[in-house]
Amino acid sequence: MQTYRHDTPLRLELGGELQGLEIAYHTFGRLNRRRDNVVWVCHALTANSDVADWWPHTVEAGCFLDPSRWFVVCGNIIGSHYGSTGPLSVNPATGEPYYGDFPKITIRDMVNAHKILAEALGIGRIHALVGSSVGGFQAVEWAVDEPERFDRLILIATAAKASPWAIAIDETQRMAIEADSTYGEPRPDAGMAGLAAARAIGLLTYRGGEGYNITQQELPTGDHGTILPRESHRPCSYQQHQGKKLCERYNAYSYMTILDAFDTHDAGRGRGGLEKALSGIKAGTMTIGITTDMIFPPESMRRLCGMIPGAVYQEIESDFGHDGFLVEHQKLNDILNKFLV
Amino acid sequence: MQTYRHDTPLRLELGGELQGLEIAYHTFGRLNRRRDNVVWVCHALTANSDVADWWPHTVEAGCFLDPSRWFVVCGNIIGSHYGSTGPLSVNPATGEPYYGDFPKITIRDMVNAHKILAEALGIGRIHALVGSSVGGFQAVEWAVDEPERFDRLILIATAAKASPWAIAIDETQRMAIEADSTYGEPRPDAGMAGLAAARAIGLLTYRGGEGYNITQQELPTGDHGTILPRESHRPCSYQQHQGKKLCERYNAYSYMTILDAFDTHDAGRGRGGLEKALSGIKAGTMTIGITTDMIFPPESMRRLCGMIPGAVYQEIESDFGHDGFLVEHQKLNDILNKFLV
Repeated sequence: MQTYRHDTPLRLELGGELQGLEIAYHTFGRLNRRRDNVVWVCHALTANSDVADWWPHTVEAGCFLDPSRWFVVCGNIIGSHYGSTGPLSVNPATGEPYYGDFPKITIRDMVNAHKILAEALGIGRIHALVGSSVGGFQAVEWAVDEPERFDRLILIATAAKASPWAIAIDETQRMAIEADSTYGEPRPDAGMAGLAAARAIGLLTYRGGEGYNITQQELPTGDHGTILPRESHRPCSYQQHQGKKLCERYNAYSYMTILDAFDTHDAGRGRGGLEKALSGIKAGTMTIGITTDMIFPPESMRRLCGMIPGAVYQEIESDFGHDGFLVEHQKLNDILNKFLV
Repeated sequence: MQTYRHDTPLRLELGGELQGLEIAYHTFGRLNRRRDNVVWVCHALTANSDVADWWPHTVEAGCFLDPSRWFVVCGNIIGSHYGSTGPLSVNPATGEPYYGDFPKITIRDMVNAHKILAEALGIGRIHALVGSSVGGFQAVEWAVDEPERFDRLILIATAAKASPWAIAIDETQRMAIEADSTYGEPRPDAGMAGLAAARAIGLLTYRGGEGYNITQQELPTGDHGTILPRESHRPCSYQQHQGKKLCERYNAYSYMTILDAFDTHDAGRGRGGLEKALSGIKAGTMTIGITTDMIFPPESMRRLCGMIPGAVYQEIESDFGHDGFLVEHQKLNDILNKFLV
């Protein structure tokens, strides 16, 4: 991981600015002489800039982010926990970490930070811009904002505008975090029980019924008369475990910051609406839906495709819901190795 | 609402007993001379014995629970908030309300309380047993337990065994309640912020994406440049409102008690497994699935149908997910007026 430090404050869409901006990033492979092999990856909610870490079997030889071929760049989104300026960063105005005082940011602010990073890295034209989930929010926003910059745009399990359903999921997670009365206290581990519950909510929506019913079947007890105590139910221990795992690597303030940014997402805002904004995209675009994704269902990915000039749609058959974008790397590689030429 | 008081303690499946058992119930219509017009309704999670209240347009002339034709009975489940013995009842052993010390109960315990109520009301044979959601858990359990007692069994949006997915949803709700550190305090309004979040989680799974996207579309602002603050997003205020509404009428201890009971549900437990248990059902059975129900999806309702001898399956087309069983009363009446003869 490297970190770029920016001298000029980043003006924020909802007011205020971030001073002493830091952007953590990873690169894989090398920028070629013609500078035409950049693939920019935008990461999702709680991920980081290390694409090879959170997106297994993509940044590898023969995969669609093959580093011998592409110069892969990923910047950690602002507000996050992984090196870019966020709620645990020191607020220059107070000398203390922001915590709950971190300003509200939008997807557009995240994209503006990406632009700053691109400039710092000497990257002008970007061959392909890739995003899944909240990463796709940034990608579609950026492709609308700078239509001439990209040859290819790849939008996986995402949307051009947050749906009421997705916003309801976010609000429910916020309610869980705020049910934990330690949230708001000026310490990095504030709101952890709430964060664990929020993560468990998220997982329900990432994985979906098919996913749970396949992976979390109770182990046969051999005794049909036994009633399992709560902690022995596989899906219970799974939810608890996943909540705990996030708490060990993340903080509730960053989580809340990104949920809030999620809800602001509307690539058509101030641009005459969604259809008009998307009609301006110049990149050759592919949208990819996952059959069991309950957050961004296939029909919404098809509608998104229909609004982007010349875009093509591909569907991945998966039992793993929204998480399919992480699990089904083989299917993704098959599709994207052909598209990313 | 009437209340039956039972002298004998109710032995509980997981150990212990409930002394001073009270069962709140409603009846609609009259028991005929032949005593063959009883329709017993089992209610779901946070409902009560007043079927006409929570299931609109069913206990009405021309509807499937027409009280001029049927003697409709519904008992409030034990553990609930609505009159039957539950966590806010006084524990005879201490003279104080149970709160968090209320014993763990199972779906079978709920059914045993129904049996006690039936006996108290002089009801032997039951013409039809109806349950949707957790109400269906009780219905299928009772139909397996006393196969000779029922002519008809109607199972709507439910299951014969809690799935890993449904248990994961429950666990997530428990995590939200327990994130509220007031849960456990000996007062009726303990854990309310957690309960609100739990309810919001439940609603996501009851209503589903289609439901939210239809009913919670943002109102047009007329200004595409506006970013809505969180509280102005319709889906946010909806989640908050629904959480608050439950807190005004329920308590977190009852909610937790019923979630725990939900997870114990397995009509095959101690009976040689599900298929064997269900094969013993003698009632003419109809299972009804709802196209968009994400908790009890149509394919699981079809599988359930396939395990009950002679059962028929009907499907209700709805955009309202699991809540379809409440919303689509017209379609239900059409189907059940023909079946309930």
